[in-house]
Amino acid sequence: MKSLPEKKNLSEWFTQVCLKTELADYAPVRGCMVIRPAGFAIWERIRDFLDREFRELGVRNAYFPIFIPESFLLKEKEHIEGFAPQCAWVERGGEEELEERLALRPTSEAIICSMFAKWVRSYRDLPVLVNQWVNVIRWEKTTRLFLRTTEFLWQEGHTLHRTEAEAEEFALKILAVYERLLGEFLAIPVLVGEKPESERFAGAKRTYTLEALMPDGQALQAGTSHNLGQNFSRAFEIRFLDSDNSEKYPFGTSWGVSTRIIGALVMVHGDDRGLVLPPGVSETKVVIVPILTKEAKLNESLLSKGREISDRLREKGISSYFDERTEFSPGWKFNEWEMRGVPLRIEIGEEEIKNKTLCVKKRTNEKRERVKEEEIGARCEVFLKEIQEEMKKKAREFLSERISRVESLAEAKRVLQEKPGFFLISLCGERECEDRVRQETKSSPRVIPDGGKRGGRCVVCGSEAKYEVYFARAY
Amino acid sequence: MKSLPEKKNLSEWFTQVCLKTELADYAPVRGCMVIRPAGFAIWERIRDFLDREFRELGVRNAYFPIFIPESFLLKEKEHIEGFAPQCAWVERGGEEELEERLALRPTSEAIICSMFAKWVRSYRDLPVLVNQWVNVIRWEKTTRLFLRTTEFLWQEGHTLHRTEAEAEEFALKILAVYERLLGEFLAIPVLVGEKPESERFAGAKRTYTLEALMPDGQALQAGTSHNLGQNFSRAFEIRFLDSDNSEKYPFGTSWGVSTRIIGALVMVHGDDRGLVLPPGVSETKVVIVPILTKEAKLNESLLSKGREISDRLREKGISSYFDERTEFSPGWKFNEWEMRGVPLRIEIGEEEIKNKTLCVKKRTNEKRERVKEEEIGARCEVFLKEIQEEMKKKAREFLSERISRVESLAEAKRVLQEKPGFFLISLCGERECEDRVRQETKSSPRVIPDGGKRGGRCVVCGSEAKYEVYFARAY
Repeated sequence: MKSLPEKKNLSEWFTQVCLKTELADYAPVRGCMVIRPAGFAIWERIRDFLDREFRELGVRNAYFPIFIPESFLLKEKEHIEGFAPQCAWVERGGEEELEERLALRPTSEAIICSMFAKWVRSYRDLPVLVNQWVNVIRWEKTTRLFLRTTEFLWQEGHTLHRTEAEAEEFALKILAVYERLLGEFLAIPVLVGEKPESERFAGAKRTYTLEALMPDGQALQAGTSHNLGQNFSRAFEIRFLDSDNSEKYPFGTSWGVSTRIIGALVMVHGDDRGLVLPPGVSETKVVIVPILTKEAKLNESLLSKGREISDRLREKGISSYFDERTEFSPGWKFNEWEMRGVPLRIEIGEEEIKNKTLCVKKRTNEKRERVKEEEIGARCEVFLKEIQEEMKKKAREFLSERISRVESLAEAKRVLQEKPGFFLISLCGERECEDRVRQETKSSPRVIPDGGKRGGRCVVCGSEAKYEVYFARAY
Repeated sequence: MKSLPEKKNLSEWFTQVCLKTELADYAPVRGCMVIRPAGFAIWERIRDFLDREFRELGVRNAYFPIFIPESFLLKEKEHIEGFAPQCAWVERGGEEELEERLALRPTSEAIICSMFAKWVRSYRDLPVLVNQWVNVIRWEKTTRLFLRTTEFLWQEGHTLHRTEAEAEEFALKILAVYERLLGEFLAIPVLVGEKPESERFAGAKRTYTLEALMPDGQALQAGTSHNLGQNFSRAFEIRFLDSDNSEKYPFGTSWGVSTRIIGALVMVHGDDRGLVLPPGVSETKVVIVPILTKEAKLNESLLSKGREISDRLREKGISSYFDERTEFSPGWKFNEWEMRGVPLRIEIGEEEIKNKTLCVKKRTNEKRERVKEEEIGARCEVFLKEIQEEMKKKAREFLSERISRVESLAEAKRVLQEKPGFFLISLCGERECEDRVRQETKSSPRVIPDGGKRGGRCVVCGSEAKYEVYFARAY
């Protein structure tokens, strides 16, 4: 029996859960990981969810090269300053020394905008709405499975619009898609809003973010959507002839979520026994375990019952796995599948067959429920919905317990000590005051909530506050 | 109106079709391309087809790092010799000079086998069946859109088995999957069989291949499946404890198809007017064009009829696009959609509305057929199936016309002149004789057909033939 550390030792628990449930493994290259089939299946479900939503918005998938010539990165000044320290460089290909070194994409604005400049001529070519699912490279100093790795997978969307208002509207539409992905599909509640200037994407005019809270009270940025204004259009000389016959620069957006949200999923929902997966992302929604003992061996009636239940579930579109293995005990299997986070378990023994009932257990509580055999499909559907709602509720409750409004730096420090999480604070918007909060609380500004009240006083300098902003320590 | 070169100027035609139908574009990095949404949609359909087939075989998707430490590549001698000249190297990451340089994967046996060595302990862990959809890098000297690029996309499967027979069987199962993909789904007939030793994958025991024929008579390798024997298991020290309690090396396979098959798809089926897409890979299966004239403007009855037809098609699961644009003439639209390869076109005008009939035209011929409105869904289903069969038949006929059995080098040369394609020739199996054929005919051995007759004499040295093998000039 594999055993896990308790979840209160979050860091060690997290690593062991990822390794033992075979979501991922360390690769023999510094800072890199292997995403194993159990982990990749979650990523595929996230991809399918987003691809459906993106298609609704008219976004189409494409593929742009991983190589970005250094001169391209240099075109947008803030962009290169932000990313150069993290770039990996190719200087030699085959037998030849390259004339210009190539960065492996840390993000693809530069290469994509260079193509947009070729493709966009007229207002009729707008909007341009593309997305790609790719690997990206950022040379990180300290790395953690899923949360921060030298190579990771993400989707990055890039769009161009005729007007500033359209670009802004599109960046917000994507933010809403991400909120559904996180809040609904993954049952991870998030604080949504704008980043303060100091935390903006390098080259963006506005960065919107979704911030989740981990069990240790640290925030995790789970997705971003950027309004790029005309910054990249100007840098890459993307111009279009508008209907008024004048040449203009279009307005851009870019946006992405990465495999790091699988790390958030593990941390937010898991418990001492292992993973707890929202039904939507679990490859197997129901595991069926025959109750075998020394007396009750695996016999024809158990086998055919197991397959029958499996078929009934399939009719409802519920994927299941009938664990017929004889080398493991039922207890071992219960633990194994609970560790792997399968939402529902059905037990079948001689008694169940006799009574035409089944014993069903949710991953999220300890109760076993008796269900009539003929109702199993319909009841499992209901149970899965309940699990989803229970997971959302539990995560939301944790988040709201860990949000505090503070009126002073002293209060912020006390709150971080007592119940680590987000604290909401009023600031004047000057970098100096923000930095003071950072230093004193060892945390960073995460998100300015939409419609946050503008009144009040800056907690540092006492002058009129420009906004309220959530601070937290962060991954 | 965009115009294309004639297909008989194959090379120029190919490039223009890829660019003008927006399948792809040249990237501003030597030898790299951008796969635009129209091209990527084809790749997504290929991915979906293969993922379904792989799942049936128990294969699961995963993700392994793009970086391969040089020392890993060095472990399998033939492997490094085969790939080193094409590797791109990362020697600097962020601010640091790396201790060991990293290759960007030209293929992933080395990194994947290093992980398998960690994961496999017992015969119970076998078979291991994984696949990944990734970018790969091979520093090519001369490049062509889709057919040969420095970076390309592919799927690469990697498996481990308990016995040699199981590995061989699995390599052949995958070969059969690829044959269905090419021959059925993409309507590209292929010659299937083994590669002679000189053309084997670097490190493989046996390489199976699928060879398609392009309109200029040149072969194109469309997919390979390798039986790796124990070569990589030994090199990477992958060992398992078998049920007889002895330690053994498992047997491996690896296999892949890449975005180059999109190039084959374009060349095999296209014509002077542009792309011809098999219905299964066409994003839009039917385009609906309202016949507008100066007199007949786009009115409510045309609009609602177009949408009604679209709905009827959707009920049958047939994706369609109603081209309501008023800035282009019907003739322009006909040409445009034919160039893009959409399989079916429906025309609706005032007369059609009055008679409750529709005019349907296949991309593959010149005939317009009248179809009763209420039968449109069912008839389009039939038309699409017919198109698929017509495309298969036409491509098969071309291939069989271009296969010749030759008895001498002189005959081979004459045949290559008169009707370029494959020639089947008997060889003794000595490298010297094979090389003589290569030099004299400027072609290469492509595939040893399964069950090819073993009798006869080597056309070069006259000694007993070991096998018959198809030669061709190749992309």
